[in-house]
Amino acid sequence: MERIERVGVSLEKELLSVFDKLIAKQGYQSRSEAIRDLIRQQLSAERLSNPEAKAVAAVCIVYDHHATRLAEKLIDLQHSHILQVISSLHVHLDEDDCLEVIVLRGRVGQIDRMGEGILSMKGVKLGRVNLLATEQS
Amino acid sequence: MERIERVGVSLEKELLSVFDKLIAKQGYQSRSEAIRDLIRQQLSAERLSNPEAKAVAAVCIVYDHHATRLAEKLIDLQHSHILQVISSLHVHLDEDDCLEVIVLRGRVGQIDRMGEGILSMKGVKLGRVNLLATEQS
Amino acid sequence: MERIERVGVSLEKELLSVFDKLIAKQGYQSRSEAIRDLIRQQLSAERLSNPEAKAVAAVCIVYDHHATRLAEKLIDLQHSHILQVISSLHVHLDEDDCLEVIVLRGRVGQIDRMGEGILSMKGVKLGRVNLLATEQS
Amino acid sequence: MERIERVGVSLEKELLSVFDKLIAKQGYQSRSEAIRDLIRQQLSAERLSNPEAKAVAAVCIVYDHHATRLAEKLIDLQHSHILQVISSLHVHLDEDDCLEVIVLRGRVGQIDRMGEGILSMKGVKLGRVNLLATEQS
Repeated sequence: MERIERVGVSLEKELLSVFDKLIAKQGYQSRSEAIRDLIRQQLSAERLSNPEAKAVAAVCIVYDHHATRLAEKLIDLQHSHILQVISSLHVHLDEDDCLEVIVLRGRVGQIDRMGEGILSMKGVKLGRVNLLATEQS
Repeated sequence: MERIERVGVSLEKELLSVFDKLIAKQGYQSRSEAIRDLIRQQLSAERLSNPEAKAVAAVCIVYDHHATRLAEKLIDLQHSHILQVISSLHVHLDEDDCLEVIVLRGRVGQIDRMGEGILSMKGVKLGRVNLLATEQS
Repeated sequence: MERIERVGVSLEKELLSVFDKLIAKQGYQSRSEAIRDLIRQQLSAERLSNPEAKAVAAVCIVYDHHATRLAEKLIDLQHSHILQVISSLHVHLDEDDCLEVIVLRGRVGQIDRMGEGILSMKGVKLGRVNLLATEQS
Repeated sequence: MERIERVGVSLEKELLSVFDKLIAKQGYQSRSEAIRDLIRQQLSAERLSNPEAKAVAAVCIVYDHHATRLAEKLIDLQHSHILQVISSLHVHLDEDDCLEVIVLRGRVGQIDRMGEGILSMKGVKLGRVNLLATEQS
């Protein structure tokens, strides 16, 4: 169980009122939760700027499953990086296109490069490497 | 099978040479493939700016599975939006934290709002909604 | 003078300690100031998603001043949109390249389109449209 | 005068037609110009990931000019970094708020840190550091 601290933040009445409206719309049930999320996002962005930091990446790609041997090559690639690849999820979008989410784990620099490698494969139409920092410090 | 066209592009010799080095590093096997990817990314960004466009979203979240009833609430939410939720993938990161990727499908505005709702749930530490436009026009 | 409120935020001790380190590195002198900035950024991003919101944009471009008549066309464009263009700043980068920052003011949709128009002009090598929301609500 | 090369790019007929529509809307007069811009943006993003690369930054801030001594501190800061600060542009937005664009020049790491320092100053309500890579290789 983590220890909780309570800190005071002073801010303009109007700023607070606009913020309260936004977070209600987003579905937050408490202001603390919304502010914690803003803080965590900023810390995550900061950590991801360090290529040595530990992270997970969800590599999301859309590809045409008719593309020559792409599915096979994707599997090969994942097995040859077995230490970094944790899991993958495959969704059939229509007759041609698939969405595949490949979850990688490792150092930022390493998994980012590996994600870029997947995005550059012939047949991959669209994709993004989404890094999330997993460790606090 | 899609019809292929070949178009000519003129660009500065030096720009071309730097671009060729970058795409080799990224793993591209042909210049056309790299340029097609740049074009597709820009078209996808453009389409995602229209809330009515069809898209898929991979909502990636990190959460503490000890958080009160979050897993249960996530399942409830997914079932109550059964038309949009296609699939999800769960990865155990360490004793406390899980990564979950939830794949949504629908109109940009709708699935983006639903993704925001997931990110704002109590116990979700970190997350991102990754939209990919699926239709060409 | 704006009225100031003081609110309490509860967060994990460790999260707070990492955040305090980051904001000290960034140069913040108080935690409230850093949290206010996070809140303002998020509100600004939210407002900018509405094409009708009022905003300013700093359009930053790098261009070769030898490019045929670009400087002239830029001036023409600015004068023909005199209501939106407030001011511009020109910096000589080297023998060939200039940096120009053009400040626009108006509705998000309108100045974003105008910024895109500037970026697409022949001779503009690199550029970005930076929107900032100016009104609170 | 830079030497121009002409390269062939093959892409799906439908992709090309959608791309042509988008760039016409953005104001491009030729497809080559639009593709060159995509390439330059990607190269710029790549170079900006290296803290040692040379770049310019336009730091855009909105601040209340009533804020205690902020204008004075901004001028002090700019003069104490005289080698990096090239120029600045000041726009009066309303009775309270000003927009200031400060153009910095130097290594990515250095000017990014300096920009962050400006954003973190008390009284700065909103801001962004916009880096543009200036050198080709």
